[in-house]
Amino acid sequence: MPLNIHPDTKVHVFREPFIFDTPYMGRDESIPQLEVGYEAWGNPAHPAILVCHALSGNCHATDANEPDDARKSWWNAMVGPGRVIDTQRYYVICINMLGGCGGTSGPATINPDTGQSYGMHFPVVTVHDMVRSQRMLLDVLGVKRLHAVIGGSMGGFQALVWGILYPDFVERIIPVASTGYSNQFMIMTNRVQIDAIQLDPNYQNGHYTPDKTPEIGLAIARMIGFTTFISPVMMERKFAKAHQSLREPFRDGYFKEQMFHEAENYLRRQAEPFSQEFDANSMVYLLQTWNHFDLARKYGTLARAVQPIKSRMMLIAATGDNLFPPYLSEDIVKAMAVHGKSVLYELIEEDYGHDFFLIPDIIEEKIAPPLKVFLES
Amino acid sequence: MPLNIHPDTKVHVFREPFIFDTPYMGRDESIPQLEVGYEAWGNPAHPAILVCHALSGNCHATDANEPDDARKSWWNAMVGPGRVIDTQRYYVICINMLGGCGGTSGPATINPDTGQSYGMHFPVVTVHDMVRSQRMLLDVLGVKRLHAVIGGSMGGFQALVWGILYPDFVERIIPVASTGYSNQFMIMTNRVQIDAIQLDPNYQNGHYTPDKTPEIGLAIARMIGFTTFISPVMMERKFAKAHQSLREPFRDGYFKEQMFHEAENYLRRQAEPFSQEFDANSMVYLLQTWNHFDLARKYGTLARAVQPIKSRMMLIAATGDNLFPPYLSEDIVKAMAVHGKSVLYELIEEDYGHDFFLIPDIIEEKIAPPLKVFLES
Repeated sequence: MPLNIHPDTKVHVFREPFIFDTPYMGRDESIPQLEVGYEAWGNPAHPAILVCHALSGNCHATDANEPDDARKSWWNAMVGPGRVIDTQRYYVICINMLGGCGGTSGPATINPDTGQSYGMHFPVVTVHDMVRSQRMLLDVLGVKRLHAVIGGSMGGFQALVWGILYPDFVERIIPVASTGYSNQFMIMTNRVQIDAIQLDPNYQNGHYTPDKTPEIGLAIARMIGFTTFISPVMMERKFAKAHQSLREPFRDGYFKEQMFHEAENYLRRQAEPFSQEFDANSMVYLLQTWNHFDLARKYGTLARAVQPIKSRMMLIAATGDNLFPPYLSEDIVKAMAVHGKSVLYELIEEDYGHDFFLIPDIIEEKIAPPLKVFLES
Repeated sequence: MPLNIHPDTKVHVFREPFIFDTPYMGRDESIPQLEVGYEAWGNPAHPAILVCHALSGNCHATDANEPDDARKSWWNAMVGPGRVIDTQRYYVICINMLGGCGGTSGPATINPDTGQSYGMHFPVVTVHDMVRSQRMLLDVLGVKRLHAVIGGSMGGFQALVWGILYPDFVERIIPVASTGYSNQFMIMTNRVQIDAIQLDPNYQNGHYTPDKTPEIGLAIARMIGFTTFISPVMMERKFAKAHQSLREPFRDGYFKEQMFHEAENYLRRQAEPFSQEFDANSMVYLLQTWNHFDLARKYGTLARAVQPIKSRMMLIAATGDNLFPPYLSEDIVKAMAVHGKSVLYELIEEDYGHDFFLIPDIIEEKIAPPLKVFLES
């Protein structure tokens, strides 16, 4: 089974059932044991910061050996020695999402009761489930209090739910490029991604085998996602009008095919490693988790949802983010204001698109300075 | 073979080979005869207006029997007796796009030399090919001159190319929600639509049979498209937070499945008839035609491309159109300005999204008034 596990990942196994929040027809409601994959950097005696990853990430938020090479982890520019989330000053932990395939239990994990992977029998995963599993691990690591929880996109969902579930445990929450609920555009684009995966004849209703995975369906899902992660303006800048000579489709296999437009080649080059490292069922599960994330529905209103939060909050959004447009962060500001709670809201001017929070230049110039002040306040 | 042919469609057959613009490896460069599907309304002695349809449309631009029912044709609010494109004052013609499946030759058409449908042997279609086929039909209909050519989206591509190919034949061209070239976002989102169709196990590299068409792949393509046709703001307004109780996926078959979110149900309800009426190969061909549409590449620059145009031009774009953002129309204005040619440019304030030009209220309030002045000038 393709797995998105970095070699530095440690796994803690809780040898007791983990009960999920949402009973769901035809699926289990618990798993007999919980594995939690994580990495931690720095001195455990220092203030602890939890970093939460997004949909396709894993717990390798920074690379201790090559902290300056942005390709070695998804957040090297943000986390590491001398970075704003400074591993010399903070004890930094990143935990793979429950339902993922980066070390924490998910559909690809072997069920010890059956010796088979859970597949589509894995329970439905909510963001609340993810956060509860993270709390369990922090207890094992001896973390008594979090200086901050930070995450972008789905990582931001987790930061927000940390503030709601464990108000006395978290001093600061920092949802970046995030929201308190999935909007209709997300629901639609995530749905067609799920459908593309399930259309792949190799998908077999989730019962695919390691030698025959639905990699093209997964690649198509990823490419659909990609069209929403960077802005149309950035795409124009990135690919200009580069193109190849005309060729026949499906000449050399799906990923090796030479496409006419450089943008098409780029899409497939991006999607290929993802489709080979990420588990298709995990992708289906996490897209469902995303689509069902709606704190307003769960608590009645967004204002009621955020009522328990005691942590100080900093929200970071960007003008060029079409997937998580700023109004979604502003809705959280308004919900907090209902209770007279103030929020630091950083609206960053950029035209990169949703993935802005992963881009080293934007991190250094626009995210790190206000974040540093907030973390030290 | 599913075909998007309205019963009112007339077909003219040119019993001679039609040679296409672009030789393409492994495909034919001509077809032995050309069928052109069309409808015409009004008095042939009146000034003639050609209406060009978009990707998924057909030549049924208005319904003579039920002109007030917007569901009976795709442009009833625009074309008909007393409408701005008034069938009592103009002779109005709408022609199915070459490569489509609404009466004009396309991949689903039977090749008279083989008795089989062309399938993927059909030549690659350019917008220039489409316009040349339309000109041939107008000659047969005895149209000596066009008062105007109007079309939205891909229909706008045709209007623009009409001005370039036949400058002395067309008095006015009106590209609506259109562009002189496909941008990188279009190229990407169209590519994943093609890939979704071709992933369907029924697709069989284009050699599918009428009883087993790639309808789910085609539906997914359509749903991906749909996420770009209306704006995220409109989606929020349309679907609010309507949702169902949780159900298991694939319970009752793809289209009948009850989804959790109303937005997902809506997507599938929209996609179902399309997937059953539209030919999958046609969709692949037309998306390729769209992706290869680039007048700047073909002529060196957009300014050189528009140089032959003698027609007066009105461009209509909308602020809420994320798929064809206004800058694409403004690029045409600038290209025309290089030659000292002025263009009427109507930028409509609306937040519906790309499909604004199909919406009766927007047509009546914002498109018809300036268009009427332009048509009568």
